[in-house]
Amino acid sequence: MKQIILTGDRPTGRLHVGHYVGSLKERVKLQNSGNYDEIYIMIADAQALTDNAEHPEKVRQNIMQVALDYLACGLDPEKSTIFIQSMIPELTELTFYYMNLVTVSRVQRNPTVKAEIQMRNFEASIPVGFFCYPISQAADITAFRATSVPVGEDQMPMIEQCKEIVHKFNSVYGETLTEPKIVLPSNQACLRLPGIDGKAKMSKSLGNCIYLSDESEDIRTKIMSMFTDPNHIRVQDPGKVEGNPVFIYLDAFCRPEHFEEFLPDYNNLDELKAHYQRGGLGDVKVKKFLNNVIQSELEPIRNRRKMWEKNLPDVYDILKKGSAAARETAAKTLDDVRHSMRIDYFTDDNLLK
Amino acid sequence: MKQIILTGDRPTGRLHVGHYVGSLKERVKLQNSGNYDEIYIMIADAQALTDNAEHPEKVRQNIMQVALDYLACGLDPEKSTIFIQSMIPELTELTFYYMNLVTVSRVQRNPTVKAEIQMRNFEASIPVGFFCYPISQAADITAFRATSVPVGEDQMPMIEQCKEIVHKFNSVYGETLTEPKIVLPSNQACLRLPGIDGKAKMSKSLGNCIYLSDESEDIRTKIMSMFTDPNHIRVQDPGKVEGNPVFIYLDAFCRPEHFEEFLPDYNNLDELKAHYQRGGLGDVKVKKFLNNVIQSELEPIRNRRKMWEKNLPDVYDILKKGSAAARETAAKTLDDVRHSMRIDYFTDDNLLK
Repeated sequence: MKQIILTGDRPTGRLHVGHYVGSLKERVKLQNSGNYDEIYIMIADAQALTDNAEHPEKVRQNIMQVALDYLACGLDPEKSTIFIQSMIPELTELTFYYMNLVTVSRVQRNPTVKAEIQMRNFEASIPVGFFCYPISQAADITAFRATSVPVGEDQMPMIEQCKEIVHKFNSVYGETLTEPKIVLPSNQACLRLPGIDGKAKMSKSLGNCIYLSDESEDIRTKIMSMFTDPNHIRVQDPGKVEGNPVFIYLDAFCRPEHFEEFLPDYNNLDELKAHYQRGGLGDVKVKKFLNNVIQSELEPIRNRRKMWEKNLPDVYDILKKGSAAARETAAKTLDDVRHSMRIDYFTDDNLLK
Repeated sequence: MKQIILTGDRPTGRLHVGHYVGSLKERVKLQNSGNYDEIYIMIADAQALTDNAEHPEKVRQNIMQVALDYLACGLDPEKSTIFIQSMIPELTELTFYYMNLVTVSRVQRNPTVKAEIQMRNFEASIPVGFFCYPISQAADITAFRATSVPVGEDQMPMIEQCKEIVHKFNSVYGETLTEPKIVLPSNQACLRLPGIDGKAKMSKSLGNCIYLSDESEDIRTKIMSMFTDPNHIRVQDPGKVEGNPVFIYLDAFCRPEHFEEFLPDYNNLDELKAHYQRGGLGDVKVKKFLNNVIQSELEPIRNRRKMWEKNLPDVYDILKKGSAAARETAAKTLDDVRHSMRIDYFTDDNLLK
């Protein structure tokens, strides 16, 4: 069986280091692993509109930003099909028919939907489109016959919902759809980076993100202002590394060779942590090290981004071609779905049979 | 402004006299009135699937039956565009985007949805697709820029929901969609015929319908077995006409000229009712009259139906051509919708702007 990946992001802002360590880096690794026959990367504008219906311009403006971030990180249009969700109308048709196979109460029980509704303070005013997005995601995944969906652990219930739809469809209309499996990030530390202020989530509105497109000087300023252990006041005080964003970022970013290059007094992160915990190591020294580590990781990304920024028509062409290719695949699946449901009336005069 | 009609039926069974007096007859009258520029008649298979997902064959088989009933009643493909809903994928796209403009609680408050859920004993297991069908109906109506939707009074809340979506869309994305108005049947008596057993609703499963395709002898048998006033036992007893199906059917079907032809002892229905109420008029006599009236109305319909049944490929062509024409109209509206939402990225290189 072909190994096929579907994944993507909502274009509601530029991508930041949280996206990078949580998914983008892994995605590039999967792309270059040679283990996958087809890779589809979706810029989920239609999904973003489900809770941004009144801010279509925000979604629109961020499509190019996300595409630039993708290319900057090393997603390669020769290997991965990068496309825009709303340009594939077949996805709305699949969503429409899958909606008949899921009950309202089943969606209400979906833990991810529950959490997202709470996070957005929707309560009684949940848009129907937002409420139905697990079904729409099932359409996205199955349209490309994805076998692997690389997402965070928090998305597990969405993949379960998708599998249920696949089972239900296949049992009612006959074997048609492919069941996906979740691919979790290999590095557990990377699952979710906190904001530079220590808050659990990076968000544009909190202003606590380091963006992939940030200039070197901005990154330095952000890192030097990072929240650490609030009880680590004097250098000689013992400090905590658990829950300390500076060390969480180091867990996610630094490799042994970074010590050799930027901080040769220590052999590895464990030694640095031990020193911080027993006291005698100042935050500034650790932050300077983190800055060096992150700068070395983000510099090539930023440079590639600037290169692509000068060639926006090329990025446009990549999205246009990717969307056309993705549409072709989705249309084939939709044909199969229609055939199984026997709503292909005008194919081979089927309505007369 | 162009006057445009959209209406239709779910293909879940052959059409019966309830459909005929409640909507079909009126529809043919509107078609032939010359007051409308465009008329779209939709066979709503996709909507039927929202609560028949597990019985697609039932829906499929009834598409031709409904089309035959339409043509038999005098809907004319030269004047009305008869099409199949699922053949217009644009409708699912519009539904998808409108879903962002309606809250879950707003749909839950829709009285028609409440009543339909109760009628189907859905309770906790409402399919999401069925739950969302008012939104899908708004897509159907607006796709054709319908100004007039001829439906029963019970559908008023659906039209209200559609108007709300039109207002919301136009206020968020700019003036784009056309607001429809409801057209109620001119004859209030025709709003809803009871079954021949006196039950409020005609339904296939209750076996209490007179179908447009029934043979003459079957119609006679059904009428002669009709429920009347249960307290009208002997001919000389006074009888009730209110709630008496035989008289409700006469209200809907008979015209003064029918008396001249079939029952010259009376000048009109009021005289017949008066006699029944004061006693001395037997049910058999009234039923025979009703049989003559209905037979004279249904005979030409049945004959036209038989003619079309011999030419199924022609009916197929009418549906295929109608669907292609309807799709063209819907695609234009979708273009306007996409343009207003600015998700027309690849039109005129809009994404680069």
